[in-house]
Amino acid sequence: MAVAARTGRSSPCVFCALVAGEGPAAVVLNDDGFLGFLDRRPLFVGHTLLVPKVHHETLTDLPPDLVGPLFARARLLAGVMETELGSEGSFVAINNRVSQSVAHLHVHVVPRTKGDGLRGFFWPRTTYADDEEMAAIATRIRAALEREPADG
Amino acid sequence: MAVAARTGRSSPCVFCALVAGEGPAAVVLNDDGFLGFLDRRPLFVGHTLLVPKVHHETLTDLPPDLVGPLFARARLLAGVMETELGSEGSFVAINNRVSQSVAHLHVHVVPRTKGDGLRGFFWPRTTYADDEEMAAIATRIRAALEREPADG
Repeated sequence: MAVAARTGRSSPCVFCALVAGEGPAAVVLNDDGFLGFLDRRPLFVGHTLLVPKVHHETLTDLPPDLVGPLFARARLLAGVMETELGSEGSFVAINNRVSQSVAHLHVHVVPRTKGDGLRGFFWPRTTYADDEEMAAIATRIRAALEREPADG
Repeated sequence: MAVAARTGRSSPCVFCALVAGEGPAAVVLNDDGFLGFLDRRPLFVGHTLLVPKVHHETLTDLPPDLVGPLFARARLLAGVMETELGSEGSFVAINNRVSQSVAHLHVHVVPRTKGDGLRGFFWPRTTYADDEEMAAIATRIRAALEREPADG
């Protein structure tokens, strides 16, 4: 099922290479459609990357029928971070394009412990000028969603 | 369908209150099972929170049959950040327990632009002592996953 994306003979997709068994990987999950493996430079020990075997760049690019299976596995991994690795919680995240180090969709599943130093969402926040600005943005997003085909 | 979780008369779940229509919200999505609304203190304009209407604390607590529908909507929202708000990418994330500000599962969908200042995954990384340590952790996670019922 795996279809490797080659961006050029000298720079294949590194995750497609792992899927093809062409690189070393500490594999935690390997089934028909998905591969899970440890990030070699983890935020914390156990930090796992979960990828669809077929190459898709972002979550938006992922065919709808793979969305449920991908996150069913992410859900199980998040649980295992607590039950097996003794973490107090987890962080499940996807960078689409911006801050995306490898252009092959990957879900980070990271064990978390209080006081572990991960800043999480404590970045500076912004604010809306007023409720009208906020409502206008919401209206634009809502209208755009309503133009999308329902597939959930 | 919405079942509000009350943690006490004086402190209901704030997201259950939004689901029940009891608070002001800039709603972007509202259907049978899910509510999407703008974060009032966004990382960037358009930062959306997506919640299941029924109260579940974490991704692990979410019943398997709601996982696909939840992330199908997150996927559409991630696309809209680019097509409607003109972002270059997006950040889709869940804090389970640690760094989770409201104990009702919520998916952050955040528009991203290169150079926007969000540190993303540029936190200090750690390393494994050696390949053996890494393989041992992978083995533990893999074994724990194999004990889980398959539902993907």
